[in-house]
Amino acid sequence: MKFCSTCGATVVLRIPEGDSIPRHVCIACHTIHYRNPKIVVGCLPVWEDKILLCRRAIEPRYGLWTLPAGFMENGETTAQGAMRETLEEANALVELKGLYTLINLPHISQVYMMFRGKLLDLDFSPGIESLEVALFREEDIPWNELAFTTIRDTLKHFFLDRKNGSFQFHEGDIISSSCD
Amino acid sequence: MKFCSTCGATVVLRIPEGDSIPRHVCIACHTIHYRNPKIVVGCLPVWEDKILLCRRAIEPRYGLWTLPAGFMENGETTAQGAMRETLEEANALVELKGLYTLINLPHISQVYMMFRGKLLDLDFSPGIESLEVALFREEDIPWNELAFTTIRDTLKHFFLDRKNGSFQFHEGDIISSSCD
Repeated sequence: MKFCSTCGATVVLRIPEGDSIPRHVCIACHTIHYRNPKIVVGCLPVWEDKILLCRRAIEPRYGLWTLPAGFMENGETTAQGAMRETLEEANALVELKGLYTLINLPHISQVYMMFRGKLLDLDFSPGIESLEVALFREEDIPWNELAFTTIRDTLKHFFLDRKNGSFQFHEGDIISSSCD
Repeated sequence: MKFCSTCGATVVLRIPEGDSIPRHVCIACHTIHYRNPKIVVGCLPVWEDKILLCRRAIEPRYGLWTLPAGFMENGETTAQGAMRETLEEANALVELKGLYTLINLPHISQVYMMFRGKLLDLDFSPGIESLEVALFREEDIPWNELAFTTIRDTLKHFFLDRKNGSFQFHEGDIISSSCD
């Protein structure tokens, strides 16, 4: 950030009075421009014993597999965002089963929130950001071709919980990773 | 937003190619300026049968009571943010017991995440954003002087779960409210 989005003047990095963190502050209108973590919302869509995955048609991780997920938008709830992303990336309709994993990625200032979802029908297809969308049994998950650690962790929790017969909410942190 | 924070030129509101939502786009360098929901992290600090509340020394809701909470910062985890806010607003040290409530406020594009916390000692005092910090038994909670609906809902869940002998994670949406 070099310029004030309110008045167009230059911004400088300084600690505002009563604050403890350097912020971008406008030298003319004195607006403080805060920057905050972004939420990524997504879904683990389940059909019988299979999971829906999308192969990415965009960077980063072009060509690798992921669960449908993306940045939460202003004006929506986390659940609405997860359903929207599932529709956009896989043209898939899901009934959500509650928040399943919440994973912090402080090194990139993101918080992942993945919901479990019941896939409502098999009328799915690649959205504009996907090359391919397909259902996978546990033994067929392409573990070495997953796009993100958050997705791997969410799938691992799911298969373990399913084996144990009880799904519970999981919180975790990925402090630093070459894969995110 | 009127000016590009990258190059200082004018921004216009338009739907970028491949997108479906109007964004602020720079007419000169074509940077797309996304806006996303903010996370508010906080804590419900417990000491024996009492809860720690802070009386706000800042707007909005100056003079009303709240749980320690505030905007999550870049580079921290949700738990770190909740502990930081508890320290800043109440000079209180807590041991967190996991995420307790997640409440969407889509009309103001915020997501509240409140943790249960065990207050570690009684050396608390008002931080710069608090007029007063005090412990309250359930029967003494100033229900009509609480600052935010999210705080009321979190406290209601807590007292009901405590009565039932089991704390569980709660998700909720506040679609619109005169109190937030």
